[in-house]
Amino acid sequence: MDNSLIDYLSQFVSTRRRDLFNRIVQMRTRYLTVAIEDVYQPHNASAVMRTCDCLGVQDAHIIENYNRFEANPEVALGASNWLTIHKYNSPGDNTLEAVKELKRNNYRIVATTPHHSEVMLDDFDLEKGKAAFFFGTEKEGLSDSAMKHADEFLRIPMRGFTESFNISVSAAIILYRLTEILRSSEIEWQLTQEEREGVLLQWLRNTIKSSDLLEKKFYEKKQGDTNKEKDF
Amino acid sequence: MDNSLIDYLSQFVSTRRRDLFNRIVQMRTRYLTVAIEDVYQPHNASAVMRTCDCLGVQDAHIIENYNRFEANPEVALGASNWLTIHKYNSPGDNTLEAVKELKRNNYRIVATTPHHSEVMLDDFDLEKGKAAFFFGTEKEGLSDSAMKHADEFLRIPMRGFTESFNISVSAAIILYRLTEILRSSEIEWQLTQEEREGVLLQWLRNTIKSSDLLEKKFYEKKQGDTNKEKDF
Repeated sequence: MDNSLIDYLSQFVSTRRRDLFNRIVQMRTRYLTVAIEDVYQPHNASAVMRTCDCLGVQDAHIIENYNRFEANPEVALGASNWLTIHKYNSPGDNTLEAVKELKRNNYRIVATTPHHSEVMLDDFDLEKGKAAFFFGTEKEGLSDSAMKHADEFLRIPMRGFTESFNISVSAAIILYRLTEILRSSEIEWQLTQEEREGVLLQWLRNTIKSSDLLEKKFYEKKQGDTNKEKDF
Repeated sequence: MDNSLIDYLSQFVSTRRRDLFNRIVQMRTRYLTVAIEDVYQPHNASAVMRTCDCLGVQDAHIIENYNRFEANPEVALGASNWLTIHKYNSPGDNTLEAVKELKRNNYRIVATTPHHSEVMLDDFDLEKGKAAFFFGTEKEGLSDSAMKHADEFLRIPMRGFTESFNISVSAAIILYRLTEILRSSEIEWQLTQEEREGVLLQWLRNTIKSSDLLEKKFYEKKQGDTNKEKDF
């Protein structure tokens, strides 16, 4: 990561914003993440992304086997600008692609479902390592592919007639509870220095107008300096 | 409460359903309740009601100063059948009417807002007595009337850029966390015997076809029996 690019771009945002970025990036985590399968109602997926931002969960995985996801701006309130969104929308089993990608990055695959109850939310073992929570569609729930590849099944205790929570509600309860436990634990949930710089760079790019032109200028100047050094 | 009416109507539902009713009513609470002010997006209010059912919160207060609430059946999944819904939709300040009604029933009025932070969610004192959580509209938040009459202000910790959670998300996090704490506490959160009978009667009435005719028959028979006793 070229740290000096961050310093260079930081000139173009206010001190207040720079401080905000630095404060918020300290709270970000990749220890937990979400993967959303083909959510029909855009307000649901948008609400999940807003929740991720509010709770400091940096990554969201959007799986599009059948439905294309378009954020609902009134619900998402720009959350996708601040998150790292991973989209899976090739022909084929995109759930499997997401599972592979997450396993490569050492995530446990956790199916959230009201029909399996191997682990109840308050008993979920965070110490066992990073976890990706999979949420299925409103009507059918998780796909066979997600259920097949899940390492664990997680359930929120239900006390009423309705058999499941709304997806955005389910994600919020799980992420709220587990991020709170995480933050007060000894687990290293924070981003690494390198990840932090990557996220800061993304935020600067999304905030600054024509950041691509500024970046080009930065690299040209740098090239010039290097050439000068060579000449010297 | 006429207990024998419950016994009479119970004949008309399956044993399985009767057992379900009896099990779920034991989990119901009126110690916590929600009041929703003029939510624009019906899926939000519907999701709150579904959450209440799932978590065993029996009462929901719907305040309609400007907007009429119509449940979104795809989101609510019939939750309103199982809840006791209190609607406030007279001309005038319906928020004030809800506040008065709730205070008469010994509820603390708790404004949920990201802008006041007198109490953070995990520090909320459940021992102090029954609490009604007020949620405002998506854009303007709580009305001046709700803010003015609030006894306490409650906030969910925020770690990101977005300044507030979605309303249904906010209600879910608060109710999930506090009902879990409540259930493992020494507080008497359950319904009284009388309340339980009232709720069971409502559920039977909502479940049985032409329950009003059956009820009429029940009372006629009872009147007949009383007259027979008198004759004797």
